[in-house]
Amino acid sequence: MHIVPASLHNSLVRAAYQQRGFTDSEAEDAARFCELAARHGIKTHNAIKALHLDDLFGSKAGGCVPGAVIRDVTPPGKFAASRIWDAQRKLGPSTAFAAMEEAIRLADTFGIAQISVDHAFHYLWGGGYVMEAAKRGYIAYTNCTAALAEVVPFQGSFPTLGTNPHSWGFPTTEALGFPLVVDWATSTVAMGRVQQCKREGKQLPIDAAVDAQGQPTTDPHAATALLPFGAHKGYGLSLINELVAALIGGSLPTLRSRPVPAGEKRTCTFYFQVIHPEALNAGAFAMGRSQSANVHAVIQDILGHGNEKCLLPGQPEAEAARLSAHAGGLLFTASEIAELAAVAQSTHQPAWNLEDFPVFTPAP
Amino acid sequence: MHIVPASLHNSLVRAAYQQRGFTDSEAEDAARFCELAARHGIKTHNAIKALHLDDLFGSKAGGCVPGAVIRDVTPPGKFAASRIWDAQRKLGPSTAFAAMEEAIRLADTFGIAQISVDHAFHYLWGGGYVMEAAKRGYIAYTNCTAALAEVVPFQGSFPTLGTNPHSWGFPTTEALGFPLVVDWATSTVAMGRVQQCKREGKQLPIDAAVDAQGQPTTDPHAATALLPFGAHKGYGLSLINELVAALIGGSLPTLRSRPVPAGEKRTCTFYFQVIHPEALNAGAFAMGRSQSANVHAVIQDILGHGNEKCLLPGQPEAEAARLSAHAGGLLFTASEIAELAAVAQSTHQPAWNLEDFPVFTPAP
Repeated sequence: MHIVPASLHNSLVRAAYQQRGFTDSEAEDAARFCELAARHGIKTHNAIKALHLDDLFGSKAGGCVPGAVIRDVTPPGKFAASRIWDAQRKLGPSTAFAAMEEAIRLADTFGIAQISVDHAFHYLWGGGYVMEAAKRGYIAYTNCTAALAEVVPFQGSFPTLGTNPHSWGFPTTEALGFPLVVDWATSTVAMGRVQQCKREGKQLPIDAAVDAQGQPTTDPHAATALLPFGAHKGYGLSLINELVAALIGGSLPTLRSRPVPAGEKRTCTFYFQVIHPEALNAGAFAMGRSQSANVHAVIQDILGHGNEKCLLPGQPEAEAARLSAHAGGLLFTASEIAELAAVAQSTHQPAWNLEDFPVFTPAP
Repeated sequence: MHIVPASLHNSLVRAAYQQRGFTDSEAEDAARFCELAARHGIKTHNAIKALHLDDLFGSKAGGCVPGAVIRDVTPPGKFAASRIWDAQRKLGPSTAFAAMEEAIRLADTFGIAQISVDHAFHYLWGGGYVMEAAKRGYIAYTNCTAALAEVVPFQGSFPTLGTNPHSWGFPTTEALGFPLVVDWATSTVAMGRVQQCKREGKQLPIDAAVDAQGQPTTDPHAATALLPFGAHKGYGLSLINELVAALIGGSLPTLRSRPVPAGEKRTCTFYFQVIHPEALNAGAFAMGRSQSANVHAVIQDILGHGNEKCLLPGQPEAEAARLSAHAGGLLFTASEIAELAAVAQSTHQPAWNLEDFPVFTPAP
């Protein structure tokens, strides 16, 4: 891994988004998001993926509109702890950061708040938004509909569901040293994993994919669609995203990101929720513990009794952030730097040369 | 299956709870809950289970207090869309029905609302409460901590987590004919399934249980603890219940329902959330659809394209309710009727005789 100064990385991301017509504020949000992903070791949703998504479905394809202004379409005078937004296809991270900020503001008053977003453009890594809210002391949740229908319903044969992720963040920094973040897609694996197994000549896990006839397969070359994790349970979790989307304003999952007939919709939706932890606190913790000390004691109990080697969700991301801090920059592989160098060239930024970025070797 | 008139069933449940010292109102809630479970084919959480739970952990064991009065401990003037309750170990269904009622009232105003409950006694079947709210037109969610730590964390060896269920209900009756209810434990199977496999000489599914050494096993005789479903994903979902509980006031999961040292707690907690569907509605459905027509179209898309035989979560319960309605009563097996007959005898109610309950044969 090589160390890239965050300021250099962020300048590049800003320049790339500005070149695509995004406003300074949107370009700043994109840089903030991509730094967050890189800092926490999220290789699947860093700047390279963000720009690739923009090429495929975003500002170059009309799915995302630079400078779009979010409209609040909440019924006047109703639902004080809720906001309903029409994002008008604004950049996903800009919409998500703003929604989380507004949800936090409302949760401070109401204890719980929600923001629903129609006409959204993909926000990339839901875990990042809930993690930031959790670091600020809140419980946060988000779900969205994924870009493409790649997942077969439980006991079905044709992909009609997205990989529909759920992300929860908990304010456990005082108790555990980092926010606990539960964040995953509802498919057993992502389509990227199928491609990776193909390249590496590996088999897929069982119950991860089906072939063109809808039969389960572990052969990545035969796999044409994914399966939900945990049989009917993951299927139910995936349906939740589609139902929430359908209630907000999302349309048929098989049309999403694809050419649609007149009158149809192909945009995704977002749902955000924030809870103030004091709005849960019944104030009667055992042994005179504080709320935070109680969370610590409960987690110690779960990871005690011989379970000491278990990881907590969010721990790998926290470890990546620790390494980034230790390195004093963002950590990228040589091949990632080559891709970022190409972005630097195409946006007329100073050249990125691998030898300018010191190799980082984590202490054992 | 035999047909038992709901009125007779409910009289018996009321009498059994009154005999245990519960108030008329609590006995009525117990009857309402047990009828709901029986009517929807929930064999694991009907009157027999409810009374068995009360024997083991409830009014006979001090875990549940007849006539207990719920205290509202929300900080005065704060968190208007939230309520924090100390249930003082009141009967679970009474607490849960009241919490859902209050959450609905608040969601009408705020669009979203939550009720957190400390010092709770088990509510049995979370799916029932969210289903009732969904039938009334709301999105509802609940989680709780399970009675016993029976589940081993992902990559651990000792059971420190409950089977910690999650239940979501969606107001899809207009769109689909029944409420969609996603409701399951976060273990692959319940401990009851292990007992059943033992009796029937069957193997457990893989990734369902571990032996005394913490190694995965499919032998029900060797199984001593359960595993979360879906590896790290089900583990994360189980942790959510423990974290929410820890923030409310629940203590160490390995102490739950067990003898505890002075100053410790062994009660479970409940969390309820209700969302008004209009507080999500951005009003821009494709093809001029209504919100409900949009939900219908999305589900038709998911279950189209060759997926027509897939079931929706909540569909088996809806089918059971249809059969109950067709039979004109609640459906019980002969062995269930024998158990209820024993309850009738011990509560000095008129005798239950199997021959009084006509056999029900569903039409093919």
